Amino acid sequence: MESGDAARPGSGRATGAPPPRLLLLPLLPLLLGRGLRVAAAASASSSGAAAEDSSAMEELATEKEAEESHRQDSVSLLTFILLLTLTILTIWLFKHRRVRFLHETGLAMIYGLIVGVILRYGTPATSGRDKSLSCTQEDRAFSTLLVNVSGKFFEYTLKGEISPGKINSVEQNDMLRKVTFDPEVFFNILLPPIIFHAGYSLKKRHFFRNLGSILAYAFLGTAVSCFIIGNLMYGVVKLMKIMGQLSDKFYYTDCLFFGAIISATDPVTVLAIFNELHADVDLYALLFGESVLNDAVAIVLSSSIVAYQPAGLNTHAFDAAAFFKSVGIFLGIFSGSFTMGAVTGVNANVTKFTKLHCFPLLETALFFLMSWSTFLLAEACGFTGVVAVLFCGITQAHYTYNNLSVESRSRTKQLFEVLHFLAENFIFSYMGLALFTFQKHVFSPIFIIGAFVAIFLGRAAHIYPLSFFLNLGRRHKIGWNFQHMMMFSGLRGAMAFALAIRDTASYARQMMFTTTLLIVFFTVWIIGGGTTPMLSWLNIRVGVEEPSEEDQNEHHWQYFRVGVDPDQDPPPNNDSFQVLQGDGPDSARGNRTKQESAWIFRLWYSFDHNYLKPILTHSGPPLTTTLPAWCGLLARCLTSPQVYDNQEPLREEDSDFILTEGDLTLTYGDSTVTANGSSSSHTASTSLEGSRRTKSSSEEVLERDLGMGDQKVSSRGTRLVFPLEDNA
Amino acid sequence: MESGDAARPGSGRATGAPPPRLLLLPLLPLLLGRGLRVAAAASASSSGAAAEDSSAMEELATEKEAEESHRQDSVSLLTFILLLTLTILTIWLFKHRRVRFLHETGLAMIYGLIVGVILRYGTPATSGRDKSLSCTQEDRAFSTLLVNVSGKFFEYTLKGEISPGKINSVEQNDMLRKVTFDPEVFFNILLPPIIFHAGYSLKKRHFFRNLGSILAYAFLGTAVSCFIIGNLMYGVVKLMKIMGQLSDKFYYTDCLFFGAIISATDPVTVLAIFNELHADVDLYALLFGESVLNDAVAIVLSSSIVAYQPAGLNTHAFDAAAFFKSVGIFLGIFSGSFTMGAVTGVNANVTKFTKLHCFPLLETALFFLMSWSTFLLAEACGFTGVVAVLFCGITQAHYTYNNLSVESRSRTKQLFEVLHFLAENFIFSYMGLALFTFQKHVFSPIFIIGAFVAIFLGRAAHIYPLSFFLNLGRRHKIGWNFQHMMMFSGLRGAMAFALAIRDTASYARQMMFTTTLLIVFFTVWIIGGGTTPMLSWLNIRVGVEEPSEEDQNEHHWQYFRVGVDPDQDPPPNNDSFQVLQGDGPDSARGNRTKQESAWIFRLWYSFDHNYLKPILTHSGPPLTTTLPAWCGLLARCLTSPQVYDNQEPLREEDSDFILTEGDLTLTYGDSTVTANGSSSSHTASTSLEGSRRTKSSSEEVLERDLGMGDQKVSSRGTRLVFPLEDNA
Repeated sequence: MESGDAARPGSGRATGAPPPRLLLLPLLPLLLGRGLRVAAAASASSSGAAAEDSSAMEELATEKEAEESHRQDSVSLLTFILLLTLTILTIWLFKHRRVRFLHETGLAMIYGLIVGVILRYGTPATSGRDKSLSCTQEDRAFSTLLVNVSGKFFEYTLKGEISPGKINSVEQNDMLRKVTFDPEVFFNILLPPIIFHAGYSLKKRHFFRNLGSILAYAFLGTAVSCFIIGNLMYGVVKLMKIMGQLSDKFYYTDCLFFGAIISATDPVTVLAIFNELHADVDLYALLFGESVLNDAVAIVLSSSIVAYQPAGLNTHAFDAAAFFKSVGIFLGIFSGSFTMGAVTGVNANVTKFTKLHCFPLLETALFFLMSWSTFLLAEACGFTGVVAVLFCGITQAHYTYNNLSVESRSRTKQLFEVLHFLAENFIFSYMGLALFTFQKHVFSPIFIIGAFVAIFLGRAAHIYPLSFFLNLGRRHKIGWNFQHMMMFSGLRGAMAFALAIRDTASYARQMMFTTTLLIVFFTVWIIGGGTTPMLSWLNIRVGVEEPSEEDQNEHHWQYFRVGVDPDQDPPPNNDSFQVLQGDGPDSARGNRTKQESAWIFRLWYSFDHNYLKPILTHSGPPLTTTLPAWCGLLARCLTSPQVYDNQEPLREEDSDFILTEGDLTLTYGDSTVTANGSSSSHTASTSLEGSRRTKSSSEEVLERDLGMGDQKVSSRGTRLVFPLEDNA
Repeated sequence: MESGDAARPGSGRATGAPPPRLLLLPLLPLLLGRGLRVAAAASASSSGAAAEDSSAMEELATEKEAEESHRQDSVSLLTFILLLTLTILTIWLFKHRRVRFLHETGLAMIYGLIVGVILRYGTPATSGRDKSLSCTQEDRAFSTLLVNVSGKFFEYTLKGEISPGKINSVEQNDMLRKVTFDPEVFFNILLPPIIFHAGYSLKKRHFFRNLGSILAYAFLGTAVSCFIIGNLMYGVVKLMKIMGQLSDKFYYTDCLFFGAIISATDPVTVLAIFNELHADVDLYALLFGESVLNDAVAIVLSSSIVAYQPAGLNTHAFDAAAFFKSVGIFLGIFSGSFTMGAVTGVNANVTKFTKLHCFPLLETALFFLMSWSTFLLAEACGFTGVVAVLFCGITQAHYTYNNLSVESRSRTKQLFEVLHFLAENFIFSYMGLALFTFQKHVFSPIFIIGAFVAIFLGRAAHIYPLSFFLNLGRRHKIGWNFQHMMMFSGLRGAMAFALAIRDTASYARQMMFTTTLLIVFFTVWIIGGGTTPMLSWLNIRVGVEEPSEEDQNEHHWQYFRVGVDPDQDPPPNNDSFQVLQGDGPDSARGNRTKQESAWIFRLWYSFDHNYLKPILTHSGPPLTTTLPAWCGLLARCLTSPQVYDNQEPLREEDSDFILTEGDLTLTYGDSTVTANGSSSSHTASTSLEGSRRTKSSSEEVLERDLGMGDQKVSSRGTRLVFPLEDNA
């Protein structure tokens, strides 16, 4: 299903017909062209009925040619590696000098562009090697050909169809051809680590606190945006037809498809700046959550649109049956991938019952393999691997992470961080390169301008109305400044590119690809550069510290506003933060979660905390206390001894998810009650049992925290930053 | 050159002719068969001049077929992932129960075997899909074919030659075909991380202390072993010819080639047990160093043998010119790869002048890219990437490692550790699988028995004589028990397999491949299982702690002998260790290095310590003190401020390499002098300046060490283990 669009006939750039044994590449470098070498050698060795001697000579010649090709492969990969190296060095310089107007991805694109220009105009245009031959055949094209050459048989595989006009230009420029990747590389190799990392590093507490809004933006928002962009673009296409600027077919489904791929936002630049400036966590959660989930929605949506196949001859009219089938496919693939990811993520909890945490290497390797197998399993079952990997990442972060040893936690995080970093910058530098090396660009100014207007309107049409409706139900309103910021952060990135490059067979798809590329460039450079001024202009507070693990290890507290050097700014008092918030007085107080989350989420929270967490991890309250008495035996079996030993189950990871600020107040006793004011009355009844257990040890927890630096206590349970003396 | 053997015509298993754009796969999962899908779809869409309607139907049908193939790809990769998962879980169980007779690699092979049997006999024999077609063509085979099908052009690429008898059996069993990888995957994807990790984790001090012996074993030893095995096998082949058991050609160069590939030892199992039991570090260094370097020698040797191309018609007689050309190729490739690796490794010291260590993620990514680019650069220049990566690893560990931030050090180590672990176990499980799924095995009992005898004799013929000659020059003799252990540890592993599977075109090569596979199985299982008893039997001491970083973090001291549960054994006193050593009285004392290493190494040591280290890293003495006065300006530019700040340059990494035990005695003051007795008189003059600098801070260093656990002091500078009270 998901592969529907890929299986379209005669896809133009889909010129790779890889024998599957080659493609199962698990790890590192490159598979250099042995096949090519062999092919060339075979080609030479079979040359007619020549004498042994001349055949040997020719063999040597082709060996040289094969080596040459092997070298070119290496050189082309080296190009990308040097691009990335250059990017890293420049980015270091930027970070060092606190330059924030250009993100590393933007830089990677610029370097990619430069190399693309050099490759395009600086290398000889033709390779001069004569290695193609025509063979006319009557029947039909098969995927495998057996060719009999003077008694020897050779096996050929289909690479793809070539339009008659381009026969002579096939493989004209070796170097350009070498730096062109199969589009499926992005989907099957580069995107999974990026998406998994996104899921694995979701800031969980704030994500789940805003889950309802995030889901609304991601599902409804993406659908609305897709529909609006699709319709606007159909108008543009009609206009182009009238003006005679369109030379080929461009259907309504194509427009909708464009709407789907361009609805996948990727505010990587904005989020990086948010992270650096410690901008408002709720806004961060909203933006990040939306972008992560709408990637998933966009993938499934685009393949559902491709799967829309009305019966009968008139294949581009509306057909209710086909439409509902598409909707069914959407729901099926999405829920299937979701289930697959969640279940595999949960399965990875074999780590609970083994004592693998003594061997971090084994643990990390197992974690990696489990996550990868989710991708494969989903693909094997016909679901979408990338979506499954996303939910697997979220589940792993929620459950498996708690079972990992301390070393494995940092190992897995770091491993995926590196993979994510490399993959992301690779994609962006490839984008830069593709603008010049991709050979089938269709630049249509009207379409491009129309697309820019459409994505602007499409985003406006879902952010503002949805926010309005969400605000009706939210106690902590999404302020106008947040809405403007979300509107502004509609960058397009890796996902839109990967979806667009996947199929560039038809004229319409080529036009879409070119437009997508330009939209990505524009948004990453302009919006990325404008983020810091925008934050400042919209009065969005920065310098809000999150009690995440890395922050505790790496950073010290930074109190600063936008544009002010953090090293010079003294810690402001409460008042200045109140001013910065600008959301009305009640938003500054805690205890919003219970009111915000719908009852269904609260039900889920308590179920998860009381049953799932204790069953799957070493944390949470012992099952013996949460399960009814008649389940005693089962409860004792499933509860790990660590839960009893480890009498502080409600801290850290747990609190990220289940605890409201009221609960945290309990855990941290007097110190935070003062700050939160009325908190303690809101204690959730579901976690009371657990809290009662921990209460006795809360003093010692507090002491430990105090020992590690007195700011830390104030970082929990409250959203306001204040000196410790106020509390204690 | 190195690719010579791969470019032989019509290589039997080299059926993959990957379009290069596909093969530049940098990172994670798999490139699932989009090409195949497209091919199948194209094949359907072009089926004759059928009506639109039926074409659409057919398109749907092929889409399904393509999806099916995509799923099979996923399933086959899943098979390997589950194999690895199973291996990890079982290995955990083994480690947990302290089972040492079976190493994880051996286990991976067993699981591979089981799955291989299931795939071979449990899956349907034919795929039943009819997708090949004959097309007779007069001229010659090209690597690209253009086929004209009723006006549409399709591009085909050559997959390889098929022997006429096997036309019908091509792609008979889809599942077996899917789990068969292109042999170059091993060389270009799986081996590099393994080899790099080996270089990066060489226990440097002991490696360089025994460098002379290691080089002798690796170069002379491998050459002798290759020659002896080659000749013995030629005898066996002659015998087989007489007995009429040989059905095809088998030349002398083939025998030598077999000698080369089977001379690459890979005592991974033995070394793992050594590591676990903390066996003698010198023996560890000898074995590990030899195995790492002889892999490099074996690769280059085998490609030199393949490159041996006598002029004239009689291509298998001896030809002096061709022989010397081969020798020249060997020297050229080896030194080229060495230089490439070393230079790139050194180049990675851009990190010294940037302050990249504030951003561990960037640093790690840069490190990874640099190491990878070494591989590519070597391949692009026609050298051997794997060899270059090895020396790059050694150089990086020696210089770059010192410039990395603490976090990046552990990140890079852990990253390559995971990659190495996954790649190694993948190769071994693939070996198990290949025994049943590889379709061209040639089992020849005589050849196999002959090979076992030959590798035994070949190893004996270099270990004992070389040890004898080395002992003439070594002050610290290589005892008989060490020699027996080295003889015993002649396991064959990943490298022999990768070299053997690279070319399985001819009958001789297929026989070699089968034999190599069996040798790997036998040696890994039997020798691996026999290591612990052998250590015990040969009285090789265990429980010698190395002051390496991980050890300090992870392990506590374990005093135990072979076969005794470490948890129960109390720390023995000096006497029991003296007994265990069995090398004569003087071997227990320190101060062997200076006498052991030849003057050339000593010269290199001092050059490296005084000039290279300070230029390239933040450690070592300031250049202002080591360079003559007239170089003052240059020295000040090149010396990093950290050197002055950081007044303990001779500890840790530095001491690993340059310091003899005498120096260490100085650093650690009184505590070790008592133990080493006469040490202080042997202080090397070259490092005196450095020591003088550090002396003032040595007390505080000592104190810090004492604070971390009192055993640690005794772990430095002495080889004997004793309670602290004896020293202080």
